Amino acid sequence: MKFQSVKGTRDFYPEMMRVRNWIADAWRRVSLRNGFEEYDAPIFEYLDLFTAKSGPEIAEQLFSFTDRGGRNLAIRPEITPSLARMVAAKVNSLPRPIKWFSVPRLCRAERPQRGRLREFFQWNVDVIGEPSVLADAECIFVLVDFLREVGLTPDDVQVRIGSRPLAVAAITAAGIGETGIDSALAVLDKRPKVDDGQFEKLCEGAGLSSQQIECICEFQDVEDLAELKKIPSLEKAADGIDDLVQLFEYVEAMGAGDYCRIDLRVVRGLAYYTGIVYEVFGEGESLRAVAGGGRYDRLLEVVGGPKVPATGFGMGDVVLEILLEEKGRLPAELRSRALDFFVIDGEDGIFETVLRVSGALRRAGFEADFSYKRQGVGKQLKTANRLGAAKVAIVRADGVSVKDLSSGKQVERTLEAFLADPRGL
Amino acid sequence: MKFQSVKGTRDFYPEMMRVRNWIADAWRRVSLRNGFEEYDAPIFEYLDLFTAKSGPEIAEQLFSFTDRGGRNLAIRPEITPSLARMVAAKVNSLPRPIKWFSVPRLCRAERPQRGRLREFFQWNVDVIGEPSVLADAECIFVLVDFLREVGLTPDDVQVRIGSRPLAVAAITAAGIGETGIDSALAVLDKRPKVDDGQFEKLCEGAGLSSQQIECICEFQDVEDLAELKKIPSLEKAADGIDDLVQLFEYVEAMGAGDYCRIDLRVVRGLAYYTGIVYEVFGEGESLRAVAGGGRYDRLLEVVGGPKVPATGFGMGDVVLEILLEEKGRLPAELRSRALDFFVIDGEDGIFETVLRVSGALRRAGFEADFSYKRQGVGKQLKTANRLGAAKVAIVRADGVSVKDLSSGKQVERTLEAFLADPRGL
Repeated sequence: MKFQSVKGTRDFYPEMMRVRNWIADAWRRVSLRNGFEEYDAPIFEYLDLFTAKSGPEIAEQLFSFTDRGGRNLAIRPEITPSLARMVAAKVNSLPRPIKWFSVPRLCRAERPQRGRLREFFQWNVDVIGEPSVLADAECIFVLVDFLREVGLTPDDVQVRIGSRPLAVAAITAAGIGETGIDSALAVLDKRPKVDDGQFEKLCEGAGLSSQQIECICEFQDVEDLAELKKIPSLEKAADGIDDLVQLFEYVEAMGAGDYCRIDLRVVRGLAYYTGIVYEVFGEGESLRAVAGGGRYDRLLEVVGGPKVPATGFGMGDVVLEILLEEKGRLPAELRSRALDFFVIDGEDGIFETVLRVSGALRRAGFEADFSYKRQGVGKQLKTANRLGAAKVAIVRADGVSVKDLSSGKQVERTLEAFLADPRGL
Repeated sequence: MKFQSVKGTRDFYPEMMRVRNWIADAWRRVSLRNGFEEYDAPIFEYLDLFTAKSGPEIAEQLFSFTDRGGRNLAIRPEITPSLARMVAAKVNSLPRPIKWFSVPRLCRAERPQRGRLREFFQWNVDVIGEPSVLADAECIFVLVDFLREVGLTPDDVQVRIGSRPLAVAAITAAGIGETGIDSALAVLDKRPKVDDGQFEKLCEGAGLSSQQIECICEFQDVEDLAELKKIPSLEKAADGIDDLVQLFEYVEAMGAGDYCRIDLRVVRGLAYYTGIVYEVFGEGESLRAVAGGGRYDRLLEVVGGPKVPATGFGMGDVVLEILLEEKGRLPAELRSRALDFFVIDGEDGIFETVLRVSGALRRAGFEADFSYKRQGVGKQLKTANRLGAAKVAIVRADGVSVKDLSSGKQVERTLEAFLADPRGL
């Protein structure tokens, strides 16, 4: 072949497309029933918008380009900067809370590997304008509502919930100054994802002493919130502990508690989180997180807007699909296509009537197809089976026989009656 | 504001997103019921793929970039080259006819103007592997099925059908040699879109004599296929005339004839069409075509594949939305959002139960929401109305009152009964 797709991108042949649509439809359905509205932004933005949020380092991970007007643009690697820009532009006219979701196509100029591609889709759910932990709880409920919707149980996946203010308090209590907090957080973010030896090396690299590490890890390994309250060095973070307690009460009341557990090792790598943070992991999975999010109250300021509280999460399709595949949760029906009707020539010279019947079925909303070749009934029945037709309509001059291919049941109708009311079967 | 979107792109706030989804859902629904399967390709491809199909001139209209590996890439301006690449890669294993559709996001580095943006969505419907005009007829039927689905009547829009082989025969009969055919076609393509003076200028620019123009225009203005048969210079194109006759018979049998008419002025600008061509215009519209397509039997060869017959069309969302707006066919419901339920605190201290009820409704598939603020029933009812709730569930310790906001009808249930079966209303 002369041409190929670019490495790290996917060709969505119909079978793959059915899986992608099945996931995206569930994302949309769950978002809507939780009272979220869909939005989207352009696939490319000014490069500055992305570096404003994530720092100049992000430029390396972007597909950026210059247009003929000399503008520096980039394909979006995430949608949150666009969300911040859109909300900031209408911040005074949008009723709060702003509960929005999106299913953007995103691109990152990364080295492709398992669970990580250069082009992917990501479900984003955000609540903007609500400072209370109730908004965080609702986002977590939406996440759990989706996991349940696609058949993932608390034995398959868990939402591990931590707190950025608590992590910062523990880092500070370990004697690390303000300038060292971000790099300490970045190292701690790796802790659940690497082995002990690798973690030690990362700590060394960030200049953390073994005493400091021990001090922080001790805090991170607490699983009981009442215990946390007793640690004197966390006194200043009492609000953070109260938030966690309240969060779990809300999540429990909404019926999502069985998927959630406290895990203070979850801190999230990015600098911009300010409150509750969480990640979703497949049980026993060595893969990256399926989803992650938290509160980020300063994002709008970063893009030049006012200070507005915000919280939300993202879930990518690539890791999710691997997990669903491994757990056997992708419905078998997605493997093959399906039709409501296949319309068959029951005798010679009847093709124009086959077209009339097909057109009538389609206009009535049935998924209907017919053969481009005039063939015997047997061959056409084979095609009907290959296309996954539920029923066939065999057309003759004196009428239409409708046969259910799974039950074998057959009904006869006159052509006039069939055309007048194709749904009346 | 510090950041803005790039000119020629759109921010899809929820209201605009509902319109976009309404259009895309109709595209998908109509495609599926006509027996087409959905596919998609990456948003960026090797630059060469696009120049192979459309010539090096296309590069100017592309957003192209070089990745860190030095590869020349471009955001797709159309999906047909990717379609050709994907089909060519599996040409021996895909059962024919290949009936595929897609709703790709596309980008073109053009100057934005009314009906033409730098980022847009385009419905693509193609049949690959079928040489007969039946495949062209089916694509036209799908197009008409969609127009009817969104409420556009034959008074609003028309599918104007021409023939590339007939146009070429007329150009040849006017004494234009093979090397002049493509530029003559490009000029003729503009004829229905410019006034007579502009058309004359274009003809002059392409080196066509007024006698040649007259000769071609005379052919183009024929509306009766029987007349065409009598023109001696078109004898060599007799197959093209037969194809048109057959096409209209098929389209008529499928019930789409009322939207279609012959218009030999439609030739399509691109070089790669080889058979039937068509465009959809709004009646009385000075806008660009809403949709356009035709047969292109050589496309797979261009990307290095075998010769495989193909036919199909594209319809962009920008011109379509303007037309639907002008004709008043966008449903009023799209203007406001809608919810099935809004859950209200009927008394103080009941919020945890409000969360339980909301969670139960959502898990049962209802679009349900609640207030983040603990407020009086009156204020919460106002919010319910603003969010377009059909019903409210007023929660008290002793039960749930479900009130239909349009009929005013109210039903009382115990909390246990409601939670056990939220659908049993």
